[in-house]
Amino acid sequence: MILDGKKIAWTLYDEIEAEIQWLDTNPKLGVILVWNNPASLKYIEQKKSAAKKVWIDFELFQFEEFVIEEKLLEKINELNTNPDISWYIIQLPLPNHISKETILRAVSPKKDIDGFHPENQGALLIGDTKAFIPCTPAGIMELFTKEKIELTGKNICVIGRSNIVWKPMLMLLINAGATVSSCNSHTKDLKKYTKNADIIISATGQKWLISQEHVQNDKTVIIDVGFNYDQTGISGDCDFETLHKNWNLITPVPGWVWPMTVAMLMKNTLKAYHLNTK
Amino acid sequence: MILDGKKIAWTLYDEIEAEIQWLDTNPKLGVILVWNNPASLKYIEQKKSAAKKVWIDFELFQFEEFVIEEKLLEKINELNTNPDISWYIIQLPLPNHISKETILRAVSPKKDIDGFHPENQGALLIGDTKAFIPCTPAGIMELFTKEKIELTGKNICVIGRSNIVWKPMLMLLINAGATVSSCNSHTKDLKKYTKNADIIISATGQKWLISQEHVQNDKTVIIDVGFNYDQTGISGDCDFETLHKNWNLITPVPGWVWPMTVAMLMKNTLKAYHLNTK
Repeated sequence: MILDGKKIAWTLYDEIEAEIQWLDTNPKLGVILVWNNPASLKYIEQKKSAAKKVWIDFELFQFEEFVIEEKLLEKINELNTNPDISWYIIQLPLPNHISKETILRAVSPKKDIDGFHPENQGALLIGDTKAFIPCTPAGIMELFTKEKIELTGKNICVIGRSNIVWKPMLMLLINAGATVSSCNSHTKDLKKYTKNADIIISATGQKWLISQEHVQNDKTVIIDVGFNYDQTGISGDCDFETLHKNWNLITPVPGWVWPMTVAMLMKNTLKAYHLNTK
Repeated sequence: MILDGKKIAWTLYDEIEAEIQWLDTNPKLGVILVWNNPASLKYIEQKKSAAKKVWIDFELFQFEEFVIEEKLLEKINELNTNPDISWYIIQLPLPNHISKETILRAVSPKKDIDGFHPENQGALLIGDTKAFIPCTPAGIMELFTKEKIELTGKNICVIGRSNIVWKPMLMLLINAGATVSSCNSHTKDLKKYTKNADIIISATGQKWLISQEHVQNDKTVIIDVGFNYDQTGISGDCDFETLHKNWNLITPVPGWVWPMTVAMLMKNTLKAYHLNTK
């Protein structure tokens, strides 16, 4: 069975819109863009159109490719204190001459919707609900909520090693009372962990790493955050074709990570509005 | 076999002392104490005597029980910028009328030796080596290093649920490339996890939770961070008597957590000195 992230994203938009129409002012999302690479422009266009859908105002701050770091920091400092644009994101990647770490650290934790700031990551670690949570793991938690998938006491196997998706994911699952196993490419017997899992979350980028033989039974829920691209097209970490026919609840790749991530960006924008507006 | 944390703590003191004697000035550790409770005074006395052992200067800032929060924050702000006392800790517990969260957040992340500040916890999450790591998990990592216990690819089962010891512990182990399972009181079949583990780290405070039948074989390393006190005396989470006779490498309770924690406090003080002195 398909775990339909796209449909859930639409539900989220309805909820966000319903809430925003009662606010005195519209929330406003800013985006800082350096360098006009076509992929970034496409992503920004999608964020802009999502914002429009739910009455979130949008402003783009564009810089040319060779902008110096100081110039960007100046804009960040202005946005940190400007009450009109009260939250914003920095579109990645940045050009090589700019230190991503310096730039992301300059964003005020209160306006760090993407949850990249160490203070937000730390707040997440200690379970502070006011923390901004990076959109992809937050979106996965939303899937569980909307599909009424209980986490307390569940065995969950998380495979992968990225800071953005995966460590915050672990913390959220642990805070929810799950028994969580974190596996990576060094794991000696991956099957032992996946076969014991009620839920598998894979974010490795290794095509078809998870097949039917890795799965305990057709009740196992499979969240595929993998993305692989080769001559046959786009695929995830899991053998979707076989597994979804087995009645396993599974997310299709492509088709859910990005819609859920953008929807959660809008939800975080609304959260930022409530936190930063008096 | 006993994994002798006390002996390793002494080795650490020798290393710290050897390094400090070549410095131009001595590092200096400050302690803020509110409320003269006897346990706190005893802990401080031990920290002071450890500092003396390794040429770390020490200063105590004492406040009476009914001090107002503003007064404490004033002192913290002073210490944050005072170059003479360039790092300090706040002795817990604080009286009920003082918000622990507010106080700990006021400490500059650069002087947060205990690693309680969300920014240090976040830096730990993203694997930044400049982060201060809470002393108990840092001490456990030091045990592994000193005993030459390799972590990459190992199956490690961590049982417990405290923010201070256990979540930073998970992050450190994951950053080291281990496969880590985080279990808690909701875990359905704990034995399945412990019996698959090369290393068990238990921090539950549940007497003798881990017995011989939880352990794969006599090669399993057991780190007992539990502390239980009843009419028979002090015991850990693990059945030490049986397990250490089996040739399992195991830490005795009591006798290692506190000595290692204090030794790591001194090591962190030295790290803070290097980071903050210029």
